[in-house]
Amino acid sequence: MAEPPDSPRPIALDGLGTDARPGPEIDAAIAAAAAGLSVELVGDRARLAPLLERRLDELGQREHAGAIHLVDAAEEIAMDESPARAVRAKPEASLCRAIDRVEIGAAGAMVSAGNSGAVLAAALFRLGRLPGIERPAIVANLPQLSVAPASGGVGADAVLLDAGANVECSALNLVQFAVLGATWSRAWHRVERPRVAILSNGHEPSKGTPATREAHRALTEHGQALGSAASSGFEFLGYIEANALFAGHCDVIVTDGWTGNVALKLAEGAMAAWPRMLAGALAGSSSSGGADAITSALAPALRKLGARLDPDTHGGAPLLGVDGPVILCHGAAGPEALHAALQMAHRFAEQGVFEALQRAVAEHRELFELVRRPR
Amino acid sequence: MAEPPDSPRPIALDGLGTDARPGPEIDAAIAAAAAGLSVELVGDRARLAPLLERRLDELGQREHAGAIHLVDAAEEIAMDESPARAVRAKPEASLCRAIDRVEIGAAGAMVSAGNSGAVLAAALFRLGRLPGIERPAIVANLPQLSVAPASGGVGADAVLLDAGANVECSALNLVQFAVLGATWSRAWHRVERPRVAILSNGHEPSKGTPATREAHRALTEHGQALGSAASSGFEFLGYIEANALFAGHCDVIVTDGWTGNVALKLAEGAMAAWPRMLAGALAGSSSSGGADAITSALAPALRKLGARLDPDTHGGAPLLGVDGPVILCHGAAGPEALHAALQMAHRFAEQGVFEALQRAVAEHRELFELVRRPR
Repeated sequence: MAEPPDSPRPIALDGLGTDARPGPEIDAAIAAAAAGLSVELVGDRARLAPLLERRLDELGQREHAGAIHLVDAAEEIAMDESPARAVRAKPEASLCRAIDRVEIGAAGAMVSAGNSGAVLAAALFRLGRLPGIERPAIVANLPQLSVAPASGGVGADAVLLDAGANVECSALNLVQFAVLGATWSRAWHRVERPRVAILSNGHEPSKGTPATREAHRALTEHGQALGSAASSGFEFLGYIEANALFAGHCDVIVTDGWTGNVALKLAEGAMAAWPRMLAGALAGSSSSGGADAITSALAPALRKLGARLDPDTHGGAPLLGVDGPVILCHGAAGPEALHAALQMAHRFAEQGVFEALQRAVAEHRELFELVRRPR
Repeated sequence: MAEPPDSPRPIALDGLGTDARPGPEIDAAIAAAAAGLSVELVGDRARLAPLLERRLDELGQREHAGAIHLVDAAEEIAMDESPARAVRAKPEASLCRAIDRVEIGAAGAMVSAGNSGAVLAAALFRLGRLPGIERPAIVANLPQLSVAPASGGVGADAVLLDAGANVECSALNLVQFAVLGATWSRAWHRVERPRVAILSNGHEPSKGTPATREAHRALTEHGQALGSAASSGFEFLGYIEANALFAGHCDVIVTDGWTGNVALKLAEGAMAAWPRMLAGALAGSSSSGGADAITSALAPALRKLGARLDPDTHGGAPLLGVDGPVILCHGAAGPEALHAALQMAHRFAEQGVFEALQRAVAEHRELFELVRRPR
C-alpha cells in the first residue's frame, strides 16, 4: 500500500455488495458524506449514477454530492460464485476495483457487503499480506459479562478471530492471530494490555490440537522471555474453554476459522432460540399467568442483547493481516450498518489503527520464529 | 460381549468416579436397588463396605442390600491422569474392573463419573469396538424449538455426536456417527425416521472440511441409492449451520469431537451468561423499575431450561460404538444424576437399544464402504 497522504482519503465502498444492492450502498454513501466522510462508490456507473442523483434529491442531501465520487466497475461477483475463480475471472468486478483503489492509495480503506470469500481473495491477490503474515483473519465481537459495579453486568466486548476466513489453521496462523487481535483490541477497544487466550477443549496445555498446543507453547515461551513485567503488548492467559467465552476473562479469543464460525453462529442461534424456549418454559410452568407480560417486558432488553452479537451493529468485521484496511459486512446489511462500516473504515485507515497493525507485525517477528513447523 | 441372559443383568457402577466419591455412588446404588435394579458397586471393598452398610441403615433401605453386590478393585484412576497410560498401568482400577464386568457378561452395562478419557480408553482396550466401527462417539442432547401447538415452543431434544471423544475425525468416523446417532435417536428418543445433518460452515456441499465433504457425499449417495421411499433408517438432510442447532430442524447432529465439545460448552456458557446480561440490559434500560421483579419471575423457567442442557438431567452421556453399553457422567454428578444414569444403562442394556446399535452397524456396511479414504 502507498504511504498515506496528509488529508483523509476517501473510503471505497463496493456499490454492488448487499442483497438489496445498490439501494443500501447509495443511502450509506449519502449518510457518510453528510457526516463528513469522502466516499468512492464503486460499481456500474450507468446503473448507479441516476439512482444516486435521485436519492440525493429525495433525501435533500444535494449539498453533499461532491463528497461522493463514482468509480466505474464493469462487472459484478455474485454471492454463490467460487471466490478465487470469480476474482481471477472478473478483475473489473466492483469489489476488485474497490480493493484496487486501496492498493493504489486512492482510497484509505474499503468496505464490501459482497461475497466475503471473494473480498478475501481479492485482498490477498491485490493488496497482499502484511510482511511475514501467512493468513489474514476476520474479527468478530463477543459480548462479555462484567463484575464491575457500574457495568450493569455487561462488560466491553471481546474480539474473536478468526471468525471464518480460514477453515484450517496452523500454529503460526494462531500465533499471528493473537498478535493481530491484541493489536486490534488495544487500538480499537482501547484495552491497554489485552488478555489473550486460545479456545480449546480443556485448560491443560496437553489439551487441544497439535496446532493449538504448538501455539500455546510459543506464546507461553514468548511471555516468559519477556518477563511478566515487560510490555509485550499483550498477556497470554493460555487456553479458554467455550463455556467461558462470555465470562469476561479475556479480551482476545484466538481460534481457527472453522471453530470461530461455529462459535459465533451458535451464539447467535442460542440468543435467538433462548427467549422462545424461555417463553415456552414460562407458559408451561404453574405460574404461567404472567408469561406473556414478562416476555413482552423483556423484548427491548432482548433486542439490545441481540444487537451486541450482530456484526452490523459494530459496523462490520475487519479483515486483519492484509496490507490495507478492509471491512466485511453482511449481505443483509442496511444503510445504517454500511454507514457504521464506513465510519469504522475511516477510523481504521486514518487514526493509527492500520499503522499499529503494521508495527505490531514487524515487532513480533521473533515470536513468529518461535513457532515450530509441523513435521 | 457375551450373549445377554434371560433375566436383567446388574449394572456395574464405578464406585470411585465422582469428585465426592464414594458418597454419591453409594447413595445412587441404594436408590437404584430400591427402584428394582441390581447394581455391582466396583471399588476398594475395605473402603466401600462399611460406608454402604452405614448408608443402608441411615436411609432405612436395609431390605435392598441384596441388590447391591460389591466388586473389589484395588486401584483408582484420578481425573488428571493420562487416560491411556493410566488404563494400561492400573488394570485393577475401579473403572477398568467395571468395564471388565461388562466384557465377561457379568454386568449388562457400566456407569462411571470418573476420568472420561480413561473410561473411553478402557472401553476401547477391553470391550473393543462394534465390528467395523473405527471410533466410538459420546452423545449429548441439544434442546430444540418446536412449532407444534401443544409443545409450548419446546420440542424433543436432538442428539449431537461426537461430544468430545475424538478431537480429529475422518469422513468414515462422521458417517459412522450418523448411523450410531440415528439408531440412538430411534431407539432412545423414539424418533421413527431421524433427520440427520452434519454441522458445517455453510449449506452448500462445497463448504466444510475435506472430512465433512466426503461424509456429505457418501451419505447423499447412500440416500439416493436407497431411494427416497426406502427406509434406510434415517434421512440425511445435508449440512446444518451452527445458528440452526436449536431450531428443531433435525434429530441428529454429526460433528467431530472438537467442534462438538466447543458447541456444547458454548451453549452452556451462553445459557449461563445470557440471563445475567439480560438483567444488566433491563437494569440499564429506561423502564428499569421492574428489572428485579422480572428476573426473579424468570428464575424457575431459567432453571428448567438450564437443566435441559445439563447432561446429568438425562442420566449421563452414552458412549456409542464400543462393544457394550457404557454411560459417562460428570465428576460433579450427585446421587440423583448417577441413579438416572443407572436407569439409562439398564434401558440401554436390557431394552433392545444396544442390540439395535449392533444391528444398525452390521446393516450399514455398504454405506461405510462408500466412504473414500483420504489420499
